[in-house]
Amino acid sequence: MSSSWLRTGRSPGPPLQRKLDLPGAALEAASRGDFELQGYAFEAAAEQQRRPRTVRVGLVQNRTPLPADTPVVKQVAALHRRVEAVVEVAAMCGVNIVCFQEAWTMPFAFCTREKLPWTEFAESAEDGPTIKFCQELARKHSMVVVSPILERDSAHGDVLWNTAVVISSSGAVLGKTRKNHIPRVGDFNEFKWPEILEFRVIPGVSLREDGRCFHFSVKPKKREAWRLSIRPRPSVFQSTYYMEGNLGHPVFQTQFGRIAVNICYGRHHPLNWLMFSINGAEIIFNPSATIGALSESLWPIEARNAAIANHCFTCAINRVGQEHFPNEFTSGDGKKGPTPQTVSAHLPPAALVWTLGLWPPGTPDENGVGTGVEMGQAVGAPSDRGPAGPGRHMHTPRTPSGWPAARFTAHRDFGYFYGSSYVAAPDGSRTPGLSRTRDGLLVAELDLNLCRQVNDIWGFKMTGRYEMYAQELAEAVKPDYTPRIVKE
Amino acid sequence: MSSSWLRTGRSPGPPLQRKLDLPGAALEAASRGDFELQGYAFEAAAEQQRRPRTVRVGLVQNRTPLPADTPVVKQVAALHRRVEAVVEVAAMCGVNIVCFQEAWTMPFAFCTREKLPWTEFAESAEDGPTIKFCQELARKHSMVVVSPILERDSAHGDVLWNTAVVISSSGAVLGKTRKNHIPRVGDFNEFKWPEILEFRVIPGVSLREDGRCFHFSVKPKKREAWRLSIRPRPSVFQSTYYMEGNLGHPVFQTQFGRIAVNICYGRHHPLNWLMFSINGAEIIFNPSATIGALSESLWPIEARNAAIANHCFTCAINRVGQEHFPNEFTSGDGKKGPTPQTVSAHLPPAALVWTLGLWPPGTPDENGVGTGVEMGQAVGAPSDRGPAGPGRHMHTPRTPSGWPAARFTAHRDFGYFYGSSYVAAPDGSRTPGLSRTRDGLLVAELDLNLCRQVNDIWGFKMTGRYEMYAQELAEAVKPDYTPRIVKE
Repeated sequence: MSSSWLRTGRSPGPPLQRKLDLPGAALEAASRGDFELQGYAFEAAAEQQRRPRTVRVGLVQNRTPLPADTPVVKQVAALHRRVEAVVEVAAMCGVNIVCFQEAWTMPFAFCTREKLPWTEFAESAEDGPTIKFCQELARKHSMVVVSPILERDSAHGDVLWNTAVVISSSGAVLGKTRKNHIPRVGDFNEFKWPEILEFRVIPGVSLREDGRCFHFSVKPKKREAWRLSIRPRPSVFQSTYYMEGNLGHPVFQTQFGRIAVNICYGRHHPLNWLMFSINGAEIIFNPSATIGALSESLWPIEARNAAIANHCFTCAINRVGQEHFPNEFTSGDGKKGPTPQTVSAHLPPAALVWTLGLWPPGTPDENGVGTGVEMGQAVGAPSDRGPAGPGRHMHTPRTPSGWPAARFTAHRDFGYFYGSSYVAAPDGSRTPGLSRTRDGLLVAELDLNLCRQVNDIWGFKMTGRYEMYAQELAEAVKPDYTPRIVKE
Repeated sequence: MSSSWLRTGRSPGPPLQRKLDLPGAALEAASRGDFELQGYAFEAAAEQQRRPRTVRVGLVQNRTPLPADTPVVKQVAALHRRVEAVVEVAAMCGVNIVCFQEAWTMPFAFCTREKLPWTEFAESAEDGPTIKFCQELARKHSMVVVSPILERDSAHGDVLWNTAVVISSSGAVLGKTRKNHIPRVGDFNEFKWPEILEFRVIPGVSLREDGRCFHFSVKPKKREAWRLSIRPRPSVFQSTYYMEGNLGHPVFQTQFGRIAVNICYGRHHPLNWLMFSINGAEIIFNPSATIGALSESLWPIEARNAAIANHCFTCAINRVGQEHFPNEFTSGDGKKGPTPQTVSAHLPPAALVWTLGLWPPGTPDENGVGTGVEMGQAVGAPSDRGPAGPGRHMHTPRTPSGWPAARFTAHRDFGYFYGSSYVAAPDGSRTPGLSRTRDGLLVAELDLNLCRQVNDIWGFKMTGRYEMYAQELAEAVKPDYTPRIVKE
């Protein structure tokens, strides 16, 4: 009888799994290597016709060891060394399948929107240096290695993909799968005119917006303070690095079970999990790179729900730490730091009209800084009294035109990757998460028989009515689709 | 600025909402009526073009006030009175849309597999007594009423449906929607030959199974105890009361916003939520009747994930308490009490062959009891020494044939409905759950603007690639579909 199944039946909260008794040498090596090591087991009922199909998976979460402005080859080499050490410990723990975090060979530089040097981290998914490195690991430890990288596809016009390569325990490249859903969120994307969240109307001050600037008309001699809050809206432009995957939903038959890889943002799309499951995945890895302000409250829900909805195991992996980039960039809602931004000032003497302007990112203003907010006196003489307000929200450089200016805080990091990698089971049970701040290896022993056992109990595939949904979705995507809304 | 959005950005756990300041008279009335009353608010960012679209929803969870063997009309009347009192309080709290639990006018008798008197609770969704009752409530309080009932569809051969009727605040029947997914789980269904989970082989005892009986061959004069564990497997037969809904995924445009109803087991199917959302639902109610052993560990995950995945509010409602039925019935894994069942005994003297037999449910054995396990001495003289073992697992009636018998614990209740109704928001935030044991009313104030705001931030509809999934699903349902499995 599946103890985890019984346990889920008994406890309303997430049932935690039995701790694995990991070898002392592995625990020592992990503490020497300064990374967390945890192990848990998921059990299933005994069957007459099948023996327990026990497999141990290893989830690796880590920070980038070297600063992002270190030469590319050095960064990659340092990451190879770091992961090699973790995989050594995974081998001591009897791990059969190991999976690394999204784009694990590089800092998550897509937030910068710069191409060089970041695109130099891209490599071939068939014979790039990282693949060769992973093949050695696989052969040495007879371990399946799932290696998510930035792929350079030279066979198709040198395009980039967000790809995971699956390497068999024999060392052969079993195949690759690509990120099916690309975010249009915050730092992943481009600039869009922000919405005004708050404008405290005060006597004698009025506001006009023209899609490029906010214009404040102020009665002469007014001395009141004004306050404006702005939240940049997420972009709806394309991701600037890679496009949606074109490989569908392949499942890989490994020596230890059928696995699939749902990369990062695909986690938010239940249909993505479903198609991997329909194709037979018993374990779906979700290598990710996501930050607190963006997704941390969703993190414990989505992969766990996917395990429940698809009668399979899911492995959610997220990197840790903060990555700093040489050049400043600005953000959507994904940005670190207080949201919304606040720009505030006391009006200078004799101000008649004030203008608050923004530039799109990548369009440096006269100071060579990207997106910014300029607050300048459009009418009247230049003033020495620059804007005041919460300093950390503002810079006060002078534009060449000599007007005082206030800027969004452009920043050099994407935010804090919160780790918290975990494994969820088809019966709704889950392991605790790894640390939010430390590198770590999570070892989970899975009896894959639990997938079919829970399938036979809940039967979501049987009751899923996919034919109906295939038809409804086909209708819904038509340009002239009319939603079925019943009115009185 | 949406405080809930900010909060989700800050806290890894489920962010809880601001408590509503509910009128004292309402709180007093609730305590007089002996039900819990809680209120929370979800906020959204201020917009320039839309004012806040604030709506208050009321979720009602309750036990059945009268025993299940009370005359049907009395049970219905008592439920009407109970819910009427709760709705009075909802009105005091300014509730605009109220939703009751699944099949709220009756005990959840489907586990009995008996037809009478339970099917007498079914009524017309257009002009049945409960609909008329709800229309009065709607008119009196200018409140939209969502009333999930067992529907008798006299226009289509008197078939039964698991239906929710939506009544406009004007009192008009706006329309109905039907349960799209029917469980094939445990008590919801019919009998299937169980699997043997454990048979402790002991010297001199062998086991043979013929799909109808377990035969134990025992060497004469053996005295050892034997032990057999059996777990009934969930059925794959049709539900015996109603079939899958045939009304698709209608969304109802009410005075207070666009709503849909995903009844109970549809909660487990992400595509069901998705189609309601694609059709424009801003609030999806999930009236349920589910028990701890079956689903409690999934409860906090599924509706919350649906709110996240579909940029809408979800309202999960579950009844409370335990309902006792006149006649015994047996269960699948959904059953209350220890699973698996254990049948054990010391062998009587001179036993040669023992037989353990089962009957399908609804086929009363000689004692007029449904599904049972008979353990009888097939060879040799009747023995006075009946089976022994954990008493609560066994009855020891004698069959007319005079052999000692052991039965599964047939029971008279479905299990414990754990309440815990809650509301989840598109940003991943949620309210606390209502009590696991008490009747209750949960009032939630929703700013529906949050749906489109989160949609614009996360953009799951935009990045959903539904065209691809419509095609993949259409392929996947074909009888000759070959899953995409990559082999070495």
